[in-house]
Formats: sequence, C-alpha cells, structure tokens
Amino acid sequence: MRKYLIGLDYGSESARGVLVDAETGQEMAHHVHPYRHGIMTDVLLDGSRIPSGFSLQNADDYTEAAVDILSQLGRGRTIAGIGLGFTASSPLPARADGVPLSRLYPGDPHAYVKLWKHNAQAYADSINARPGPFLDNFGGRVSGEWLLAKAAQIAAEAPDVWTATERYIESGDWLVWQLTGHEARGLGFAAFKAQFSAASGYPKDIVGDLQERLSIPLPVGSAAGALSAGWRDVTGIQGAAVVAVAVIDSHVLLPAIGAVSPRCFVGALGTSAAYLYLGNEYRPLPPGIEGVAFDGSVRQLWCYEAGQPSFGDTLAWFVRTFPRGADMPASFLAYNEEAAGLEPAAGRLVAIDWLGGNRVPFADGNLSGLLAGLTRQTTAGEIYLALMEGLCFGARTIFDLFPAGGLPVDRVLMASGLARANPLLVQMMADILDCVVEVPDIENATAVGAAIHGAVASGVVETYTEGATRIGAQRFTRIEPRAKSACRYRSVYEVYRGLTSGGAVHSAMHALRNL
Amino acid sequence: MRKYLIGLDYGSESARGVLVDAETGQEMAHHVHPYRHGIMTDVLLDGSRIPSGFSLQNADDYTEAAVDILSQLGRGRTIAGIGLGFTASSPLPARADGVPLSRLYPGDPHAYVKLWKHNAQAYADSINARPGPFLDNFGGRVSGEWLLAKAAQIAAEAPDVWTATERYIESGDWLVWQLTGHEARGLGFAAFKAQFSAASGYPKDIVGDLQERLSIPLPVGSAAGALSAGWRDVTGIQGAAVVAVAVIDSHVLLPAIGAVSPRCFVGALGTSAAYLYLGNEYRPLPPGIEGVAFDGSVRQLWCYEAGQPSFGDTLAWFVRTFPRGADMPASFLAYNEEAAGLEPAAGRLVAIDWLGGNRVPFADGNLSGLLAGLTRQTTAGEIYLALMEGLCFGARTIFDLFPAGGLPVDRVLMASGLARANPLLVQMMADILDCVVEVPDIENATAVGAAIHGAVASGVVETYTEGATRIGAQRFTRIEPRAKSACRYRSVYEVYRGLTSGGAVHSAMHALRNL
Repeated sequence: MRKYLIGLDYGSESARGVLVDAETGQEMAHHVHPYRHGIMTDVLLDGSRIPSGFSLQNADDYTEAAVDILSQLGRGRTIAGIGLGFTASSPLPARADGVPLSRLYPGDPHAYVKLWKHNAQAYADSINARPGPFLDNFGGRVSGEWLLAKAAQIAAEAPDVWTATERYIESGDWLVWQLTGHEARGLGFAAFKAQFSAASGYPKDIVGDLQERLSIPLPVGSAAGALSAGWRDVTGIQGAAVVAVAVIDSHVLLPAIGAVSPRCFVGALGTSAAYLYLGNEYRPLPPGIEGVAFDGSVRQLWCYEAGQPSFGDTLAWFVRTFPRGADMPASFLAYNEEAAGLEPAAGRLVAIDWLGGNRVPFADGNLSGLLAGLTRQTTAGEIYLALMEGLCFGARTIFDLFPAGGLPVDRVLMASGLARANPLLVQMMADILDCVVEVPDIENATAVGAAIHGAVASGVVETYTEGATRIGAQRFTRIEPRAKSACRYRSVYEVYRGLTSGGAVHSAMHALRNL
Repeated sequence: MRKYLIGLDYGSESARGVLVDAETGQEMAHHVHPYRHGIMTDVLLDGSRIPSGFSLQNADDYTEAAVDILSQLGRGRTIAGIGLGFTASSPLPARADGVPLSRLYPGDPHAYVKLWKHNAQAYADSINARPGPFLDNFGGRVSGEWLLAKAAQIAAEAPDVWTATERYIESGDWLVWQLTGHEARGLGFAAFKAQFSAASGYPKDIVGDLQERLSIPLPVGSAAGALSAGWRDVTGIQGAAVVAVAVIDSHVLLPAIGAVSPRCFVGALGTSAAYLYLGNEYRPLPPGIEGVAFDGSVRQLWCYEAGQPSFGDTLAWFVRTFPRGADMPASFLAYNEEAAGLEPAAGRLVAIDWLGGNRVPFADGNLSGLLAGLTRQTTAGEIYLALMEGLCFGARTIFDLFPAGGLPVDRVLMASGLARANPLLVQMMADILDCVVEVPDIENATAVGAAIHGAVASGVVETYTEGATRIGAQRFTRIEPRAKSACRYRSVYEVYRGLTSGGAVHSAMHALRNL
C-alpha cells in the first residue's frame, strides 16, 4: 500500500498543504486555504473595534484550514507523517483543555492570536532593560514581536484574560495539540521566540506566572503524537499519521532546499529577508546576529538567525511610488529590464537598505533608507538598480559576520519565489557576496520542508539528510560571481560600509525619526 | 520731447530689450530676439565638428540681435541711455579693430565666444596651483568658467589663434565697443571674472601676453560713449543714446529690484541660484563666498557673490525623471499642489542639494545629492518637498556666512520667475531663513536693471537709488516666516548640517564619483 506524507505551511494569509509520496519523494498534490478572517486589524468576531497597531488572527481559522487541506489531500490515503511550519511568533491564550480564549472573550483583542506582525515593543523594551543571561543568545534583546513581550502585554492590559489563560502557546504548537490531543511544543518556537534553553529552561520572572502557562519543548523532528481519532473521522485519513512538532516557517524549509549540513548559509528572500546559518559548533553570537538555538531548526545543528526587515518590500515601494506600467507587475518588468542592461553601480549611486529599519548589526528600527550620489543625470532605472544593490550590500554585511565570528561558510543557498523570479538579483548577490550562489529548483519549499519533518518524526526517513535527498530539491541552479562586477562592487561596498558605520548618518536618521 | 531708456539683457539663448520712459520710469515695450546659432556644441559656422565639452557662441549673433531690438524699440525715438547686462564669463578673442576672430578662423573652436557654460577646468586647476594675493577675493581659486582659464586654454590649445588675438574681451564689453566704437570694459566683468583689482590691476604672469590683450575697466554706471553714427543710421535711434559699460547679467538686476543699499541679500533663483550681498565695508571673504568686488555691481558698494550650481534644475530633474502629468508643467503643478498640502518635512526626509556639486562652502564639483530618511511609507510628494527644502537649506548655509563674517543682513530679496511663480518655495525660504523675504513685483527685471544702468551713465538719474525708485519695482510682496514651521525647520536644518559637514558623507560622494 502506497504511503504518503503531508506538509502544512501556515502563512499570514492562508495555509498551504502538499501531499508527498513517502517512497519516491515526489509531490503529488497541493492545496491552499485562505483564512476566513485573514489578518484582523479592524473588528473582532463580535464586531468590536480592534485597537490601532494590533494585528490578530482567529485560532479557529487554523483548524478550519486544517480540516479542508487534510481532507483534500489525505482522504482515503495512508498518511505516514504530517509536519507543520507556522508563522512565529504568533501566540494565543488558551484554556487547559485547548479552548482558545477568543471563543470565551470574543470582545477582547487580547484573547486572540497575536500575529507575528503585532509588535508589543514597549513591553520588549522593559524586558530588555533588565539584562540577564537569557538574552545572551539573542543579541542582548527580545523583540516586541516575540512571545515574552506579548505575554507581558496581556498581563498588563487585560489582567482578566491573563487570569483565564491556562496555556500561552504558539499557534503552531496549539494546532499540533488540536490534531493529536496532546500538548507538545516545538523547540524552535520555544528557543527563538520565548528564549528557552535546554540548560536553564524559560527565562524566569519576566511575567508573573508565565512559567506555568508554558511547557518544555521537544527537538524538531520529534513526534508529538498520532492524528487523533476525531480528526481521522473528519478528514478520512488512514495510517500512522504521526504529527511532528511544529517548526518556525522560515526554518522549516531548510531540508527541502538541501540545507541540512553545517557551514551552510541560507537566504530566504521575500518581502523581508531571513538568513540562517547552520553550524555544528556553538559560538558566542557574532555582534548583530539575532538568535541561535540547537535542535530548533534541523536536528543536531545550531541554527543562527539574522535578517533584513525590508527586502522585496523596498523594491515594491519604489515601483509603487514611481510606477512605469499599467500595474505593479508591468512596472517591475520595466524596471528589471532596464536594470539588467546597466553596468554595476551604473549611476554611481549607493543606497542604504534600511527602509524598514536595521536588524543586523544595529538592531535599530529608527534607522531609515538613504540614497547618495544623485545628479541631474541620474535615471529612475539607476535608482532602482542602486536600491537592489543596497539590499545585497545589507546581505553581505550579515554574511560577513559569520566567518568573522569563527563560523565559516561552505555553501550559499538563496531560496524563495523572489530568488527564482529575479535572476538579476541572484547574479548581483553572487557578485556582491563574491561566491557561488545556489538556487534550489523547488515549488512549495516550506510545505515540502514540513513534510520532511513529518517524515523524520514518523521514521519514514532516518535523518534530515536522507529526507532532503529523497524529498527535497533535486536540482540547483549555480550562479557564479562575475570577476569584473565583483571587483567593482568591492569598491561600492566600501562606500556603503563608510556610510552605514558613520556616526553622522546614524545621528541624522535618529534626528529625522524624532522630528 | 519724450525721452526713453533702453535696457538689454543678453542671456544664453536670446537677447531681450525693454523700452522705459525716462521720466515716469514705466516700461513701454519689450522685444526678444533668439540668437541665430544659439548655443553651439555640435558644429562651427564652417561645418567642422566642435570638440566635446565645448560650449560656444557666434559674436555676430549678438550684433544681429542688437540691430533688431534697438530698431524695434528705438526707431524714431529719443533715447537718453542704453544699458547692457550680459552672461559671464563669455569672452572672445578679437582683433584690435574689434573684428571677432571667428570671422577670420571660422574652423577653429578657440576663435569663438566661449560661453559661461564652457569649462576649462584643467587650466583653472593649474592657475589655482600657484596661489597669489589675486585669489584672496575669490575664495583662493578661479573657476574653469572664468576668463583667465579660457585665455590659458586658447594659448595652450590654439597658439596661432592666441597670436592673432589682439584683445581678449567679455562679449558684453565687446558689444559695447561695437555700439560706441570705443573699447570700454565694465569693472564687474573684470573683477569677478578676470580677478582685476583697482590696486593691483589684472593678475600677472597667468598667461603670456594676456595683460596686453585686456584693458583697465570702468566702474558700473560709467558712460562708455554715445551710440555711434553707424548704429544710429541702422536703428533709427535719436538723442544722446549714451551707452553704459556692460554688467554681469546676474548683477545687473539689482537696481531693478530695489537692491541698491548696504546689508541687502538678494537671491536670484533660476535653474541655478545666485546670491549677492551688498555692503559698504570690505571684509575678508567669509569662507565659501566666491567673490567680492567694489564698484562692479552697484556704484560705491561692495558686492559679495555666492551660488548653488543646481536649483530649479534639481526640481526639474525630479519631475522629468518621475513624471506625474502629460508634460513638465502638468507634473510640476501636480507635485507643487501635493507639496503645498504637506507639513514641513512631512516625510521626515532630508535632502542634500548638491545634484550639481557644491560651490559654497566646499567649492567641490564632485559632491552629489543625497536623500535620507526613506521608509516604505515615503511618498513621491514627500521626496519632492524634501528636495525643495534641501535647496532652501543650501541657501541658508550661504545666508548664514554673511553675519558670521561680520556682514549683517537687513533685507532679503528673492527675485526671478521661479520666485514669483512658486509661492510655496518663497514661503519655505522665509521659514528656513527665518526672516521676512520680499519678492519684487517686476517683469523683465534684468533688462530693466540694465536700463537703470543706462539712466545712471546718461545722467537721467543721479544715483542708483533714484533709478531704483523711479524705474525699478514699485511693489514688493512681503512673506513673513511662520513661527511653527521655522521652529521645525531649525531641527531639520541641524540634520542637514550634520550630514553636509560630516566627513563620511563627503568621502562616500568622492568615492562614488571616482568609481
């Protein structure tokens, strides 16, 4: 009897599932389910207004999506394992029996899932004000997007909701709990988003009683349990259907793109850019790298995390602000075609890529974008090119931190739709990093990665390496750096470094933000 | 019998004349004559190619324009005086009888008028390399646009033309010579463009034999002579028709806009911006101010000169690069309307206005424009606003040098079409300079200013003050600074100063230029 795996990718707007043949590793089908309530920023389920700045979701949308996707892909089939990638940090308050508090307090925004976009910065700031060793692996600070800050926000702003909160849990872990009937948290969420460490557990005394609402997580690839009888009834799934613990969505793709060995540097280029480095040794965090954890992304490896808050967003901003065609795709095409015909740094411009602030190395949301070298001959295409180059210079700043911190890079992978759709960008990345960049040829990498986690948890494969080989990308496009471009870009990068490290530029940006 | 004055304004593309009633000061008529050959950059009169970078004119176009304009305005009328404003430095080589060498060497580009746009920078550099007291009043350097550099270029690149050159003369002075039959040079040209001083004469030993090809200039408002019999025949002009010595076009407008007294600061806002300060005392040049001379602009006053190489050009660049309407005027209108609805520094952006390099205070053509504070929310209108604000910050940097150098300002005037057409820009200037700005309500100010010089030279008025009162602008729009905007702009100007004085920004711009 043919066995299958299901991988689930829970994004911000919709969930996506893939069905994979457990023997051949071939993707057989996929299905997408948009969330009924999407990202909630206006009104709650009962019609009350959502405070400005909040970014919420309804947990029941997740189970509704799971019913649809698992039924579509799994009905009547023997499913060996199921894996899950999920946005993070997107925690929700629940009762001890798993009921999300939004069902009990539909009029209170704090009873809902606080999506990763929701930022409780003031609470993060007060956590950061009392430094402790729990911040050592996170660059000395937690983010307002992470679980600890969001817990502190509920405790302070909705004490009755907090009192009713028996479990405070990432949505990915909550969904695993729903599917299996057992609470089993993933180590990736706990470490990167709640500062858990195997040695010390969760940080103490951050928010009163938070400890009791959490639980000790399991390494990625662990089995959380089998799909429950109730879900088998609803979805028609047969077989062992072992559910793996959930994984952060930006990490879950690693085995799908062959990133399962040490010294591998991965860029996931989307609206923002995430960079992951896999190592088999722990090194004190190079300055500016945002987090590191063991067993939280791929088993038996340390995963270091960094990112650029605005990546594809920056190009989209330019194209939206200065359109060149009937719509965004036409404008993108026009700008890309012009940029592809230009020499590196054709306009003798340099752009600083901080349109969404800077995460690495300054961890400073009040920094902003900059464009230098303008003349009366500067063209729009040259500006577009410079913005793209600035994004790659930002990537190089991150890339260089690893070898500088004793973490050498042997292989560079650039994943995501943007990397596959924009060869100019990837060539530029190869030229600016001055090394070979590989782009894996795979659709639905995040969901396929989740399926590999399901394969590990269910014993379909012994290791992530086996999973990557059998189920992950089979082809990689290799992009070689061009010597002449790389040479010119070395000079431009010096200019970028001079401007980005200069106190005058930082001071100016801060002063502008404080106007 | 009614008497008239004629004022002539020789610009880059055309000459313009006004007829003024000598008694009432009223402008009675005006006439424009485009030059037959315009600005010559492609081919000479004999069809030979013009070297790249050259910007030439044909002297005979000027006399053709004079015949047309003087005939149109003067035929049958009694003309008391004629004044002339002319682009500078636009010198030409001539024979001792006034024949321009372009008639004798039509195939040699060095025989033509070298227009102010023509830049012989390499020759300026080598003049600047041997500093002498003659540079003291010119910020320690001559420009490649000025007479000395252009003379050196002919001597080096076309020695036969230089040998045949008996007079090397500004086109304005040459035209006065043609009209009167007497060579009589204006002190403004000689001082600002050829570094003449009353005490030391022209600088010595710059170019072999240059001294013999120049002559001692007369203060502005001096009579060069009466219109010659030949010209009277051709134009039908009657009366004394005393011709004043020619004046630099950006200075000649001063009496037309009431700028005839000390402590007056004038901005002439065009594609570039020129700033003039009138003082009755000599002060060593404040750092960054480009030149100072006595009797060269208005009689018995010191005139200090400074400028921004790109002003209206900068806004035109933006509007051309990112159009918003069917044509430039429509785009300008759309951007101006949006900008007018924004708060000061609405986008929390700051722009450095060096798209054409910087003259004051750095005298550095390799500097370039910069835009800081970009976010994914930045709008095109906010960028336009920031560019306009950057131009005013550049103006303020110049403005502040005068009081800092012991030259207090009592009155600020902003002239030119741009100032009259763009109330938003003038209000911004008032807010950023934080003082009352007056905009004179007058058409053809440059030509009217020339007429006033004619009135002084011919004795129609005793003084420039009388000329300004009778013939110059009768109404001034006063723009008061708005306290709230001025306060906010003080903060933004601090940011501008921080960036423009920072070594990191200069280094980056230089490195970009040298890529």
